[in-house]
Amino acid sequence: MSERLVGIDVGGTKMLAVAIDRSRPSEVLAIQSRPTPSTAKAVVEAVSDLAREMELEGHLGVGLAGLVADGEVLRSAPNLQCMIDVPVRTLLVEDLGCSVVIDNDATCALLAEMTVGVARGVDDVVLVTLGTGIGGGVAIDGSVRRGAHGFAGEPGHMCLDPNGPRCVCGRNGCWERYASGAGVVWLAQQRGVNIDHNGQAITAEALATMARAGDADSLAIWGEFADWLALGLANLADVLDPELFVVGGGLVDVSDLYIDRTRERFVESVLGGRARTRTRIEPALSGSSAGAIGAALLN
Amino acid sequence: MSERLVGIDVGGTKMLAVAIDRSRPSEVLAIQSRPTPSTAKAVVEAVSDLAREMELEGHLGVGLAGLVADGEVLRSAPNLQCMIDVPVRTLLVEDLGCSVVIDNDATCALLAEMTVGVARGVDDVVLVTLGTGIGGGVAIDGSVRRGAHGFAGEPGHMCLDPNGPRCVCGRNGCWERYASGAGVVWLAQQRGVNIDHNGQAITAEALATMARAGDADSLAIWGEFADWLALGLANLADVLDPELFVVGGGLVDVSDLYIDRTRERFVESVLGGRARTRTRIEPALSGSSAGAIGAALLN
Repeated sequence: MSERLVGIDVGGTKMLAVAIDRSRPSEVLAIQSRPTPSTAKAVVEAVSDLAREMELEGHLGVGLAGLVADGEVLRSAPNLQCMIDVPVRTLLVEDLGCSVVIDNDATCALLAEMTVGVARGVDDVVLVTLGTGIGGGVAIDGSVRRGAHGFAGEPGHMCLDPNGPRCVCGRNGCWERYASGAGVVWLAQQRGVNIDHNGQAITAEALATMARAGDADSLAIWGEFADWLALGLANLADVLDPELFVVGGGLVDVSDLYIDRTRERFVESVLGGRARTRTRIEPALSGSSAGAIGAALLN
Repeated sequence: MSERLVGIDVGGTKMLAVAIDRSRPSEVLAIQSRPTPSTAKAVVEAVSDLAREMELEGHLGVGLAGLVADGEVLRSAPNLQCMIDVPVRTLLVEDLGCSVVIDNDATCALLAEMTVGVARGVDDVVLVTLGTGIGGGVAIDGSVRRGAHGFAGEPGHMCLDPNGPRCVCGRNGCWERYASGAGVVWLAQQRGVNIDHNGQAITAEALATMARAGDADSLAIWGEFADWLALGLANLADVLDPELFVVGGGLVDVSDLYIDRTRERFVESVLGGRARTRTRIEPALSGSSAGAIGAALLN
């Protein structure tokens, strides 16, 4: 029997909604995206609107970029600060009159990849989402691990340099300052690349377009991005030694620009790298939709 | 029925042997330590000698400071390089004519603390040993987690600054360059503290003695040590969100000099620190003997 599931991934920059069928979750029936508003009220309204446009049938799953406590609110969300301590689940239930489950966005992406993606059948997996910031999810022995407060798997705020650039979380040199959408822009700015060919403020998308056109600066920036991505994955491997790293989030759509170099640099960056023959680094099979698909699968 | 178990913890600087009774593992029957020799042959001989002095009865457990592969050899061991790829288990079996089990030294310490220490009954635990370097062990849902190659739980080589001091592993700015025995010496040297009051090269022990005597420089150095320790624990909490961090290794014997400040700085260094009310940081109950006790418990 077919059952329509709707999931919405609320990131720091954009929201992505999908509808899938529970019996064929790898097949996306409908998809839509819009920018993330900057106030809690507008975010809740936008989620409700998107859910209705996806022809919601009784159940909504929402992934949010931040630390979700008690399945109800965000306790910390450097890239979604307007939503902190907002009773988002309750507000959506009131608005839509259906059951709503919320979870961390990257945990949703991990669920999707474990169900219909590259992590199917893999026991020890770490997924990182490269979007505005870096999110993450950790599975050990085939189960998602959430930790003592449900905050496990937030590697974006691992410190990689206490004297590094100021992070949106208030600390310095967090991994997401380098290896995220905002990070690649910062890396570009460090090289004096501040605008794209149209004179607009530089973006990850523009840097990808420029790199594909052979622009030497842009190619070097993606190389540096790969080095930082590898460094953080190496830190995670030092701790967890997973079989598989899955790279998801918006930047997975341009993973061809950095994935090979990331793999090479990972081996050099992790203790005993050459002996780690079983660790793979793969792009999310669901691409940048993994978070929304996983949100749809929440229940 | 009483059964004498012998465990030996082989660190980068010293070896510690204990004998315990399986039925009362918290009670150490005999204990002895000696410096770690610098060649593989001498290390194997010293382990055998210590085992005999502990009145070995049929079974020996050995903890080694490095990445143990296949229960047989060290694949990577920045602080015990002479032992890399040496078939240490086989050599000990030949020498002693008894069964021998080897494992990572910090994993042994974690086993000890889970069995007779501060981690008893705690599901999600990360233990770090502060010795010559930093070792670690990870338990999730009450089980030690080893990862895809058995290399999980080696946080000492997390990079905390790619431009930091050169590490014995060949990379730069690893956590153990700051928050270990060698690390506190380096921190002292950065402040121009190179010798102790007897004119000898500065050591962690001397810095502890000087701090206890009220020496301002030494107190500041232990403060900085606590900051680095907290920073690495924060990185681990961002990923694993454990209920409990256990601090073991040789430097646990002077934990009064840094544990309070580490707890304070941890809350500031981790994402959502004030919301992490359930995470504790505690010294190992078995102190610096945890590794040897855990080695004795291996089977």
